[in-house]
Amino acid sequence: MQGKFITFEGGDGSGKSTQIKLLEEYLKVKGKDVITTKEPGGTPLGQELRRILLTGDVDKMDAKSEAMLFFADRRIHLTKKIWPALEKGQWVISDRFADSTKAYQYYGHNGRVSLPDLHNLYEISVGNFKPDLTIILDIDPEIGIKRSLNRAASAAVKEVRFENVDISFHKRLRQGYLEIAASEPERCVVIDANQSIESLHQEIIKEINKRLGI
Amino acid sequence: MQGKFITFEGGDGSGKSTQIKLLEEYLKVKGKDVITTKEPGGTPLGQELRRILLTGDVDKMDAKSEAMLFFADRRIHLTKKIWPALEKGQWVISDRFADSTKAYQYYGHNGRVSLPDLHNLYEISVGNFKPDLTIILDIDPEIGIKRSLNRAASAAVKEVRFENVDISFHKRLRQGYLEIAASEPERCVVIDANQSIESLHQEIIKEINKRLGI
Repeated sequence: MQGKFITFEGGDGSGKSTQIKLLEEYLKVKGKDVITTKEPGGTPLGQELRRILLTGDVDKMDAKSEAMLFFADRRIHLTKKIWPALEKGQWVISDRFADSTKAYQYYGHNGRVSLPDLHNLYEISVGNFKPDLTIILDIDPEIGIKRSLNRAASAAVKEVRFENVDISFHKRLRQGYLEIAASEPERCVVIDANQSIESLHQEIIKEINKRLGI
Repeated sequence: MQGKFITFEGGDGSGKSTQIKLLEEYLKVKGKDVITTKEPGGTPLGQELRRILLTGDVDKMDAKSEAMLFFADRRIHLTKKIWPALEKGQWVISDRFADSTKAYQYYGHNGRVSLPDLHNLYEISVGNFKPDLTIILDIDPEIGIKRSLNRAASAAVKEVRFENVDISFHKRLRQGYLEIAASEPERCVVIDANQSIESLHQEIIKEINKRLGI
């Protein structure tokens, strides 16, 4: 594959979407053919799964059912959008990927989906493929949640299935991301997201240049 | 669990739904508390997945994505309907269960989803649970497809994603069901479906009485 696959991870309010837009513009200026996407719901079919996953009662399905749907969405995303784009030489930036499922379902929710189950689902859905670079935007949950609530108050569509959880959940989530990054330092970089939009952007492009050699 | 879980399997046109209705009536007369259900789509949430799985272009998703969605639907079905019913002592009869996924995705489609992947999905979705009895209605595909087409012509909603396949597919499917039955004789019984509705029903209740001791 000719293109590069970059994923952004981090809790709500860490600034992923803003930074993805800025990185997209930067890479386009540098002459790259770039597409941005997201999970869940990076494809039209995935949008139907996103609606199923993110709306309705929190107990409408159990954790394993949920993990299976996230990984089904992921495989549809890979086969229908990400892999074809990479084959064409495009750079693909995704707002969330597999680390999200592990961070939320295993770390955040105290292992309610086991690591072996998550590992097997990854194998079936993704195989031995992985992102070229994963940028984890790290932020104190107290700050992130405040940012996220401000945004939600102005959003048209409410996707609230996962938002009614307590601060300790978000602390475990953050710790999970840090453990994932520590276990795969060649793929992951952790960046402090508690800084201005512009300085955070500069730090991200520094990492992109260093690791992917633009 | 107090209740019994009976699944019906077989190609299209083998008479599953008619026989399930007759068995339900029989068991109710015998004093059992019975519910009937089906896959995919045995729950309200599963109905949304059924629509995604059975309508639209045949290549809207790849085989592994499809298998993941079938097993996600299955886990929702188990956790929200089948297991709670069995706990209450109900008898549950399902039109299709996990054998369908194996018969279609592995045997019918020439191993387009591998046995290890199907095994792992079963483990995650179903665990070590299995039906008390699986009745496989065996029929020559030439006859089954003719019956199925007659029924489809009068149906209001067309679920056609899987119907445009050739006769050799249906022959492999039939062979797959027979191999599954041969590998688990204590759980599965194969019954010749090329007989009258009433005599087929009699043969089914004979097996039910013999194996589940009513």
